[in-house]
Amino acid sequence: MDKTFAVIMAGGVGARFWPASRAARPKQLLDLTGSGTTMIAATLARLAPEIPKERVLVVTGRATADAIRDALPSIPRENVLAEPVGRNTAPCIGWAALHARRRDPDAVLAVLPSDHLVRKPEGFHAALRKAVGAARRGALVTCGITPDRPETGFGYIELGEETADGVRRVARFVEKPDLDTAKGYVASGRFVWNSGMFFFSAARVLAEIARQMPELMRGLEAIDAGIGAGDERAVVDRVFPKLPAQSIDYGVMEGAAEISCVPVDFGWSDLGSWSAAHDLSPKDADGNAFGADVVAIDARGCLVRAPSDLLVALVGVEDLVVVDTGDCLLVCRKDRAQDVKPVLDILKERGRTDLL
Amino acid sequence: MDKTFAVIMAGGVGARFWPASRAARPKQLLDLTGSGTTMIAATLARLAPEIPKERVLVVTGRATADAIRDALPSIPRENVLAEPVGRNTAPCIGWAALHARRRDPDAVLAVLPSDHLVRKPEGFHAALRKAVGAARRGALVTCGITPDRPETGFGYIELGEETADGVRRVARFVEKPDLDTAKGYVASGRFVWNSGMFFFSAARVLAEIARQMPELMRGLEAIDAGIGAGDERAVVDRVFPKLPAQSIDYGVMEGAAEISCVPVDFGWSDLGSWSAAHDLSPKDADGNAFGADVVAIDARGCLVRAPSDLLVALVGVEDLVVVDTGDCLLVCRKDRAQDVKPVLDILKERGRTDLL
Repeated sequence: MDKTFAVIMAGGVGARFWPASRAARPKQLLDLTGSGTTMIAATLARLAPEIPKERVLVVTGRATADAIRDALPSIPRENVLAEPVGRNTAPCIGWAALHARRRDPDAVLAVLPSDHLVRKPEGFHAALRKAVGAARRGALVTCGITPDRPETGFGYIELGEETADGVRRVARFVEKPDLDTAKGYVASGRFVWNSGMFFFSAARVLAEIARQMPELMRGLEAIDAGIGAGDERAVVDRVFPKLPAQSIDYGVMEGAAEISCVPVDFGWSDLGSWSAAHDLSPKDADGNAFGADVVAIDARGCLVRAPSDLLVALVGVEDLVVVDTGDCLLVCRKDRAQDVKPVLDILKERGRTDLL
Repeated sequence: MDKTFAVIMAGGVGARFWPASRAARPKQLLDLTGSGTTMIAATLARLAPEIPKERVLVVTGRATADAIRDALPSIPRENVLAEPVGRNTAPCIGWAALHARRRDPDAVLAVLPSDHLVRKPEGFHAALRKAVGAARRGALVTCGITPDRPETGFGYIELGEETADGVRRVARFVEKPDLDTAKGYVASGRFVWNSGMFFFSAARVLAEIARQMPELMRGLEAIDAGIGAGDERAVVDRVFPKLPAQSIDYGVMEGAAEISCVPVDFGWSDLGSWSAAHDLSPKDADGNAFGADVVAIDARGCLVRAPSDLLVALVGVEDLVVVDTGDCLLVCRKDRAQDVKPVLDILKERGRTDLL
């Protein structure tokens, strides 16, 4: 796909995967499903048939940039953009768009999260080609995941008429619904999950930023001048902290005149918790996913992650998440996996920043 | 108590407290209830007001003898008798009796397990004085614990008439009963638990061994000659493995013409499992006993033991035993704590003797 640049957003901290995820080792640097590779390396591998490595840009935080470069040795080091401070996705994408536009004025961006799971890569490739095609024709495009359950943790997109093969107009974006509303959405067949994947030309998204987020655009113009002057890092350090912390969803997509959506079904998961990691990991006959040396006696439905030199014995337990990292041990009921974050709040209160 | 020798039996391996207990660090060397001291040191401390350290003998296995000596630095090193191989309690007590008799022909022995809990030491002291008094008058004496529940894991003693203040004749020993039988025993008020504490003069128990266990007596006579000849260790190494592996209960007490029993109620527990350790440890308002650095979110009824440099987070879990030793982690439902032993069997099968 000529002129197409991937922009992998790798700024997330993935607190829900504590203690495996840490400030310096966020979710995208973990192998959460026993695949043998990190999530971000899997994201890159998935792109390889469509987009060459030289046209993959990664945006991450400065604290994790080197770890990201190490995890993706085939990516040119300068393609990893390190934010001095996270300002949500609009500044992140705007910055990447500057780089893509400098390399090719007709650059089209495929903006992708670094820490999501795709179980059907061929479906992903087909969707990518459709979405990039629409973006090349000037559209602002999002991917919408065909829902398989009335999930209340995601925003939804209501689809309008088809504008091209496999491309629908977006009727509206809706916030995370309550369960009854979500059930109605799923039953209607007209709603898809907002996946956090976006496709547009660099020129178009920068034009939308200029129109809808002029303050951000002024900052981006300063950075672009810094790139031209060989002074990018200093300018980014000065400018980035003052940029508005806004998502591309709110800042650009929802205020645009028309948005396109490619509805997809390629075995997507945002892997939002240890419970999802258990769901999507290979399991034994008792429903256990053991990424560790385990002796199990009457254990069922458990996820275990531990260093190879720790022997884990489970006796008579069900539906537990057990994660040992040597310095921290989490034992959590699987259906309470969303409640790992409060542990981090307590550690902060106790001043245990070494464990965050 | 002149002429009274304590014999602390410290040969147990305490597999039910794996992974805290190991071959080289058995139960008696652990602090299982957060008391701040090992069980064997607590046993010794309990004796201190009644029996001087010089008259405390400890019998243990050779692999743990040095660790026992380190745990009891106030005991003369030669008072720790190291068996080359465990042969149950009759040979152990017989050997200790030889040493006591050599030091004092009128020696009276108070034979005590090293790994039981006594929560009312003053009650223990009163019982000790009564039992030693009866033993000094020539009786074979056991302590019987007044039951507070229809426990099916212990043998029971049926009590006969009183023969002295606080001393009853033993009507009979009975095996571990089923639950209905146990309920009947408790309701009758005539039954006590067999505690594994014994009191008799060295002369009397050796005479009983000579009468009832002549093969053991021949071995003990050889060892006694070895002691006299300054050649004890070599003789013990040769003789001990051939001694009959028999308990004092079966080998001596049950076959004796008359046994006395001092019924007691001094807050005794044999601490038979992690569940008992939880019962007997100090607990917070949620019923948790945390011997570790723990962050708990909706955790109830849990026992945690971990090294001080491991942060343990519990989320939404109830009635779990969580024990981390750095090389092993046990996560066990508390009411399945009896099933820790099969873990050891599996580790043996896997050749992981390093973890036993």
